[in-house]
Amino acid sequence: MRGASVIGVGMIPFGKYPDRTLADLGWPAVVAALKDAGVAPGQIEAAYCGTALGGMMAGQRVLGRIGLTGIPVTNIENACSSSSTALRQAVMAVRAGVHDMVLVIGVEKLTKFGGGTLPLEEEDWEVRHGLSMPALYAMRAQRYMHEFGATAADLAAVSVKNRANGVHNPDAQMRSAVSLEEVLASRMIAEPFTLLQCCPTGDGAAAIVVCADAVAARFRSDPVRVIASDLTSGRFMPGFRDMTTPEITVRGAAEAYEEAGVGPGDIDVAEIHDAFSIAELLYYEAFGMCGRGEAAALLASGATAIGGRVAFNPSGGLLAKGHPVGATGAAQVVEVVRQLRGQCGARQQPDAKVGLTHATGGGISGFDHGACSIHIFAR
Amino acid sequence: MRGASVIGVGMIPFGKYPDRTLADLGWPAVVAALKDAGVAPGQIEAAYCGTALGGMMAGQRVLGRIGLTGIPVTNIENACSSSSTALRQAVMAVRAGVHDMVLVIGVEKLTKFGGGTLPLEEEDWEVRHGLSMPALYAMRAQRYMHEFGATAADLAAVSVKNRANGVHNPDAQMRSAVSLEEVLASRMIAEPFTLLQCCPTGDGAAAIVVCADAVAARFRSDPVRVIASDLTSGRFMPGFRDMTTPEITVRGAAEAYEEAGVGPGDIDVAEIHDAFSIAELLYYEAFGMCGRGEAAALLASGATAIGGRVAFNPSGGLLAKGHPVGATGAAQVVEVVRQLRGQCGARQQPDAKVGLTHATGGGISGFDHGACSIHIFAR
Repeated sequence: MRGASVIGVGMIPFGKYPDRTLADLGWPAVVAALKDAGVAPGQIEAAYCGTALGGMMAGQRVLGRIGLTGIPVTNIENACSSSSTALRQAVMAVRAGVHDMVLVIGVEKLTKFGGGTLPLEEEDWEVRHGLSMPALYAMRAQRYMHEFGATAADLAAVSVKNRANGVHNPDAQMRSAVSLEEVLASRMIAEPFTLLQCCPTGDGAAAIVVCADAVAARFRSDPVRVIASDLTSGRFMPGFRDMTTPEITVRGAAEAYEEAGVGPGDIDVAEIHDAFSIAELLYYEAFGMCGRGEAAALLASGATAIGGRVAFNPSGGLLAKGHPVGATGAAQVVEVVRQLRGQCGARQQPDAKVGLTHATGGGISGFDHGACSIHIFAR
Repeated sequence: MRGASVIGVGMIPFGKYPDRTLADLGWPAVVAALKDAGVAPGQIEAAYCGTALGGMMAGQRVLGRIGLTGIPVTNIENACSSSSTALRQAVMAVRAGVHDMVLVIGVEKLTKFGGGTLPLEEEDWEVRHGLSMPALYAMRAQRYMHEFGATAADLAAVSVKNRANGVHNPDAQMRSAVSLEEVLASRMIAEPFTLLQCCPTGDGAAAIVVCADAVAARFRSDPVRVIASDLTSGRFMPGFRDMTTPEITVRGAAEAYEEAGVGPGDIDVAEIHDAFSIAELLYYEAFGMCGRGEAAALLASGATAIGGRVAFNPSGGLLAKGHPVGATGAAQVVEVVRQLRGQCGARQQPDAKVGLTHATGGGISGFDHGACSIHIFAR
């Protein structure tokens, strides 16, 4: 099968845009990605648009604004993995030889819901019982602290790191640094999470141009190869007897590493799904960056900071960059591609050669409703 | 590229199920399709689920009910083309060799919206101006009558035919025949459409098992080959100077015929998107079954009835079978596969060898928001 490369990325700064339509959020990201790739709209052969809550025909609405029509447009929903799943479809189409040049869009407008936690599906019994996303993650955090002796400060340190990274990212929703004391003293949301340990709600859009390896060099001298493109479904945790293993990510990571032919030690930069502070710690372990229960020590060592062994969420992650659900996966790719190109200035991970993105969501509690999409990239 | 075949289909009777969850609508259709294919859940390698308004993680919720988890599940939204677009993704994955055995689901629960026309996107200016779906199609119907001299009775005759077909379909929402007088005398919705010229609102689910041609014979002696799988975007009509050419379908039909190597004269049975009576007439012309303005005469000749040259909507179509948006495309495939297998009893098109499905939607007015997915099948 042929290889696929990313030759263009673009996004709008994540934030709150209550007066913009979904289409008006999306089209500037698309135009930026096309310009970055040096590709004309007429060269795009198909588009995949990820949105979780954007309503019908998001991709067509975005592309209609710039007159890009007539091509196959497919809208993808996989909760927080929506636009990373869209990327997987684009990669599949390129690898299969169906298309040479495919556009991926991620777009979401959460301000239309008026703020607060995500509108979830009432038919899920967990949701009816109050297991909104902060509550769900909080239970796992409590269990992690119980099992491994992590402290409230250990969790809060994730926010300190990621908010510090976000200071240097002009596309981040939150661009101010916060101290450990500020994180711990902010308003309690769901114990142990204070407000600054929960990703902000907001709007955003990101876009990616994917093409066949064979034609990539015609457009850019620095294409970024997609060396793993994984999607899986399953559980966020094995059950109440083990609430701290994100099973779906553990399995997805193994699949992605195998496909790419790399291991945890090869990853230089990773954008992973830090919707709440605990998540980043759980995912250090799920991705094999350290053993079970060792995540807080890994963070404290500086290994996951910019300049450390593997920079986690140099963009600021969901905690600082923001988390407009359907746009998140694509925005992670924007960051990793810019890191691998060496375009990230003060937040640049030195000499980053291999990068990873990880978007997971949807699943509640022990039910099998989760999605997890992992990509690995190399320059 | 490898070929793809359909080896299993299943659906639940379309209707109103206000007390069932989306998941509970979907899983019996999946189980029926797996049984029809002789495939165990563990043999399914990936799933694509089409839903337009079902909310987040529809596929995972459906599959979670039967414990089918761990595989890549991708939810697809393309308005009325949602599950036909899902089928296209499945066919692409099989043709590319990514998977040998893929499940397609279409599921929708419209009763949760309380009835009436679809909830549309308020950010579309056409919608804000009152162009709900009945109003949009009514304007095209009025123009068609003006241009070609078609009468109210010509339009109503579509409902008479399709309701007569639905009598013999146990999966149809409307199973009683109606006379021309009854259609014309029913409540006016949007002139010239009376109630019986508008597809009913309702709930439903359908599922399809697609596999590589090379393995199909292990499961069934009568696999149905997918000989065209097309998706396009664009306009429902070129503009106000031509309101009666469904541009997106004309173009999609040409692409699909070319891919399949067949023409209008080769099609024995067609399930097409008769959301309102006028639509079937417009699509006779768009698919080249007759010239411009000749659709009413074609219908009157009996050529599109069961037993005629090409049976249109033997299932009853959207007008009788119902139109739970995201489920419609998959249900069209269920009917065509059953027709090509000769399983349709009193509504069987004799010796059907080549069949076509057509689901189109989303687009409003002259804007470029439309989706159209066409598949052609052969036994």
